Amino acid sequence: MSLLITNIGELVTNDPGADDLLGVRTDAAVVVADGVVSWVGPAAEAPAADEVFDAQGRAVIPGFVDSHSHLVFAGDRALEFQARMAGESYAAGGIRTTVAATRAASDDQLAAGVARHVAEMRRQGTTTLEIKSGYGLSVDDEARSLEVARRFTDETTFLGAHVVAPEYADDPAAYVDLVTGPMLEAAAPHASWIDVFCERGAFDEDQARTILAAGAAAGLRGRLHANQLGEGPGVRLAAELGLTAVDHCTYLTDDDVHALRDAGTVATLLPGVEFSTRHPYPSGRRLIDAGVTVAIASDCNPGSCYTSSLPFCIALAVREMGMTPGEAVWAATAGGAAALGRTDVGVLVPGARADLVLLDAPTHVHLAYRPGVPLVARTWSA
Amino acid sequence: MSLLITNIGELVTNDPGADDLLGVRTDAAVVVADGVVSWVGPAAEAPAADEVFDAQGRAVIPGFVDSHSHLVFAGDRALEFQARMAGESYAAGGIRTTVAATRAASDDQLAAGVARHVAEMRRQGTTTLEIKSGYGLSVDDEARSLEVARRFTDETTFLGAHVVAPEYADDPAAYVDLVTGPMLEAAAPHASWIDVFCERGAFDEDQARTILAAGAAAGLRGRLHANQLGEGPGVRLAAELGLTAVDHCTYLTDDDVHALRDAGTVATLLPGVEFSTRHPYPSGRRLIDAGVTVAIASDCNPGSCYTSSLPFCIALAVREMGMTPGEAVWAATAGGAAALGRTDVGVLVPGARADLVLLDAPTHVHLAYRPGVPLVARTWSA
Ligand SMILES: [Zn+2]
Ligand SMILES: [Zn+2]
Repeated sequence: MSLLITNIGELVTNDPGADDLLGVRTDAAVVVADGVVSWVGPAAEAPAADEVFDAQGRAVIPGFVDSHSHLVFAGDRALEFQARMAGESYAAGGIRTTVAATRAASDDQLAAGVARHVAEMRRQGTTTLEIKSGYGLSVDDEARSLEVARRFTDETTFLGAHVVAPEYADDPAAYVDLVTGPMLEAAAPHASWIDVFCERGAFDEDQARTILAAGAAAGLRGRLHANQLGEGPGVRLAAELGLTAVDHCTYLTDDDVHALRDAGTVATLLPGVEFSTRHPYPSGRRLIDAGVTVAIASDCNPGSCYTSSLPFCIALAVREMGMTPGEAVWAATAGGAAALGRTDVGVLVPGARADLVLLDAPTHVHLAYRPGVPLVARTWSA
Repeated sequence: MSLLITNIGELVTNDPGADDLLGVRTDAAVVVADGVVSWVGPAAEAPAADEVFDAQGRAVIPGFVDSHSHLVFAGDRALEFQARMAGESYAAGGIRTTVAATRAASDDQLAAGVARHVAEMRRQGTTTLEIKSGYGLSVDDEARSLEVARRFTDETTFLGAHVVAPEYADDPAAYVDLVTGPMLEAAAPHASWIDVFCERGAFDEDQARTILAAGAAAGLRGRLHANQLGEGPGVRLAAELGLTAVDHCTYLTDDDVHALRDAGTVATLLPGVEFSTRHPYPSGRRLIDAGVTVAIASDCNPGSCYTSSLPFCIALAVREMGMTPGEAVWAATAGGAAALGRTDVGVLVPGARADLVLLDAPTHVHLAYRPGVPLVARTWSA
């Protein structure tokens, strides 16, 4: 069963062999078969296929690759958000609220929530998605969070080290032992990655090293949340360990930037977080100009950033982080793929996964030029 | 034919008689019949109806009232946007590009563009919409722009005084004579309002007075674009003339704010413009605290702001303009209605038009808490 998508006004291929960043082709066509892109070229030369879809001059881009989300949770924190926006402190428990609600939810309830958010993301063009645990913070709740996440994606991340579990508030070292011991053992069968929130108030550099090393020994690849709230050791640690990606990167020294560039570690920026917390935005421009690979992801979570929209994050990256529309679209597709160590997604070249997004717009620029407008007309996902 | 919408977790009524700004009711129901709200009350007490819709605990709010848009145009200016975001100057003609494309388009082409954007707005919850002319700038092109706009809304605005037409660049006084003479005569049958872009580089206070007076004599109510790019006389003029609304209000002196309050003129804020031009945002907080009525509108146009999304503008108003989620939702519904002098829309009370939006969310707060996410699950429009 093959499908020809033709009359594509602008096709973003992200072909690494192209002269331009996005590998743009105009008046193009794509053939997909068996879940894979089998042909890309000029519409006038397109081969026959079982079915034909006429894009009517609109743009087609690779499906978005969202390399950072926290979708396994219950409850929401709308009132906390409202208080934060009003500049008021909010006594109720922050992340502890979500941990309590998540622990209290059944597997079916958690899965229904993930399904709802995944469907919402897909309607907005996301075709590859990473999902973290991190609201269970007990052996059983982390393991079942990841088991639920695995039903939706292979890119699952064990984030027992999100914060110290409330039961261990007085003994964080014992919590690290739990995370690197029984919790990791229970989580590892359902996870591909391990992640640590390396920030003042969460886990320090030594703890992060310990946890990532234990994860590596269990076959999990490492990622880090780092330098979100202030400068710190996380980004340099990620570079030192040669991690695939390090996420947030809001506060970076020049040494951090150089370390990322030299290590080839992807900097994943999460502009929805800065939007929803009123923190200053990181500069994507600075990172790109220094030669660092930049990804954009949603960080979709009920606390600091409850957007699931990569089009919105792209518009923010252009408005607030000095990125061009092309750089932002690349960062949310090929950049997200790089942040997950993937080469089969984020590109539209023969052999790539048949994940495509049709925009209700003539070019990719409109994702930034028309902020907030639901421009995803259709999503094909392998 | 009556419809009962029941099991509404949170119903925003904007009932002016309620104790709270939004007139929120929980566990509520609404009955609509013959295009009008006929009953509002507790779900448990709802009367029977021909059809029943179960909101499943989600929120229902009044349809958005977008009191400021420029939908009659052809072409787009994505490359100009891209250059502006890159901090580059862009030689090609700005608004003149749109004027040339609009003049070159057929009525059918213009109507197709409006229809596409109106459908896009409706999918995002807008049920009442104002549309301006202003890209024709000739007698015939302004008249046919308004004739096209009238096919979609009664709230049409003659904006021949958008900028001086290119043919009159050397003789703006002659252009004002044209606008107040033959152009007004041709436009008035298709318009309810007259508007002037009162700003340095466009029309000054005396010209604005002349144009608004001519419009009033022709039976058109006045509105103004004012104080967008800097302080100026426009806002005070709007208050002096007792206009229903004045739009942009980005740069205001304390005297301007007091004049708006004393006159009861609505300040319509257009945060999508500041997003898309990187200008500083006006403070909604300052206006509300001073007792001014604030509306939020899209200003959807291909130059300075090509969003059509009032949910996006609500999120910006909360992030950037110091408004609470409730104030922002009110401003985009009841506030928009006030800016159009309407009392039949923007509220959900018996007798109001049956324009309702079902959110994929439990409360109105989520419109700001979940920025960029298409949360409009369904729109009912009378
Ligand atoms: Zn995160
Ligand atoms: Zn305008």
